[in-house]
Amino acid sequence: MDKIQRNERISVIIKTLCDNPNKIFTLGYFSEMFGSAKSTISEDLELLQKTFSKNSMGNICTISGASGGVKYVPFMSEKTVYETLEELANELSHPDRILSGGFLYMLDIIYNPQWVNKMAMMFATRFSGLELDCVITVETKGIPIAFATAQYLNVPLVIVRHYNEATDGASVNINYASGSAKKIQTMVLPMKSLKRNSKILFIDDFMKAGGTSKGIIELANQFDSEVVGIGVMIETSLPDKKLVENYYSLMKLNTSEMQENNSIDIKPNI
Amino acid sequence: MDKIQRNERISVIIKTLCDNPNKIFTLGYFSEMFGSAKSTISEDLELLQKTFSKNSMGNICTISGASGGVKYVPFMSEKTVYETLEELANELSHPDRILSGGFLYMLDIIYNPQWVNKMAMMFATRFSGLELDCVITVETKGIPIAFATAQYLNVPLVIVRHYNEATDGASVNINYASGSAKKIQTMVLPMKSLKRNSKILFIDDFMKAGGTSKGIIELANQFDSEVVGIGVMIETSLPDKKLVENYYSLMKLNTSEMQENNSIDIKPNI
Repeated sequence: MDKIQRNERISVIIKTLCDNPNKIFTLGYFSEMFGSAKSTISEDLELLQKTFSKNSMGNICTISGASGGVKYVPFMSEKTVYETLEELANELSHPDRILSGGFLYMLDIIYNPQWVNKMAMMFATRFSGLELDCVITVETKGIPIAFATAQYLNVPLVIVRHYNEATDGASVNINYASGSAKKIQTMVLPMKSLKRNSKILFIDDFMKAGGTSKGIIELANQFDSEVVGIGVMIETSLPDKKLVENYYSLMKLNTSEMQENNSIDIKPNI
Repeated sequence: MDKIQRNERISVIIKTLCDNPNKIFTLGYFSEMFGSAKSTISEDLELLQKTFSKNSMGNICTISGASGGVKYVPFMSEKTVYETLEELANELSHPDRILSGGFLYMLDIIYNPQWVNKMAMMFATRFSGLELDCVITVETKGIPIAFATAQYLNVPLVIVRHYNEATDGASVNINYASGSAKKIQTMVLPMKSLKRNSKILFIDDFMKAGGTSKGIIELANQFDSEVVGIGVMIETSLPDKKLVENYYSLMKLNTSEMQENNSIDIKPNI
């Protein structure tokens, strides 16, 4: 009977923690739920820590002190990141993906929950040390990856739009030059969407010159807020010099190869 | 030692299944992973089924036959759906949420991973019986809920846009009249995004007259595809007669109450 109980407790604890990444649950929460002593829960958690660590399933972290407890922290090892990106680069290299104009078709990847979660796990691993208030992205293609990253990091998502929407109240609008196309674009963020003095992680699917990142930094300034991290799925090889300096990109796409030779050269960039 | 092994197996099985909702894993997959007999894995799964059922954590379903195995099916009980929606309605009823023009501010809810996952779980529960090929939504606000629903149902997400994007290849464009504002809008879907003969679930955050739903049905027709389900977070009380007949809405917002008396009346609609 005791054996069944431990199995059941462990099952419920894993489901609860993994459904709520980076959220702290007190030992009291579980001991009350099961009617077990806190020492029993502690033993359960020790078992879980070993299992998660041994099987590379992320970290079960216990936090001591008054506001202490336990949380699940998503984590992907460098080796798995690299292998996953090699697999993804391979998938993205299929010649069918080249569109006229020298663009790479990747909507099926960036909207696919399984790939999206893997990439979000990489961003969550990389940026887990930051004290973030939110993840921010610009509509539209980066939204799934940014949303999944926000979920793993247990912070809200904020979406910047290109056009005003009457239904969201007063907004801050800025104009910015997209670095590659030299096109003037608008960013719109409703006043209520972002608190002053926020620390922000910007996540996007693609970076050419970095104009969008620069625009986000400027927009954040309007809210007295700071972009403390930038993560993009793919950066292009050209222009070599980007408009922002500190960013983390998962893959690098050789743009001249695609436009001149109509072939795809994309590689993990870590 | 045996006890630890069962705990470890169960932990890994839960994490694997719950990270991949509605994806079938063979018993052979786990028996190979652990070097255990399939009968042992079957015992583990029986334990898990009981635990998941007893603690309302969704269903662990075993599928017999050649393509058989086991999968985790997200499920929320009617009682929990109702209680969660009451809590959400309460949260949405705060007077601070009324914007000038009689609109309801809810970006903090529809971009918040915790609320989004709960609503997506409701849609996944409701539409789990359908043989779907994808979830579809129109940019921008419904994307997180649609993405989370697609993830729970283990199908790709397709995003319809309002403007052409050169980088996504040839597209099908349709014009449709938004039922409420009587405004002509455009829907754009790249040809490569949707296979012919797809069965589609349309998920959105808001339904007034249902013009967007009707547009999606028409767009699906252009791809010889069928909208087999429609799920929206909030429908408005007016117009009473929508342009589509079969849809599932989680909540109903009394629009005249808000516009005439500046007060919010929103209720679970199930």
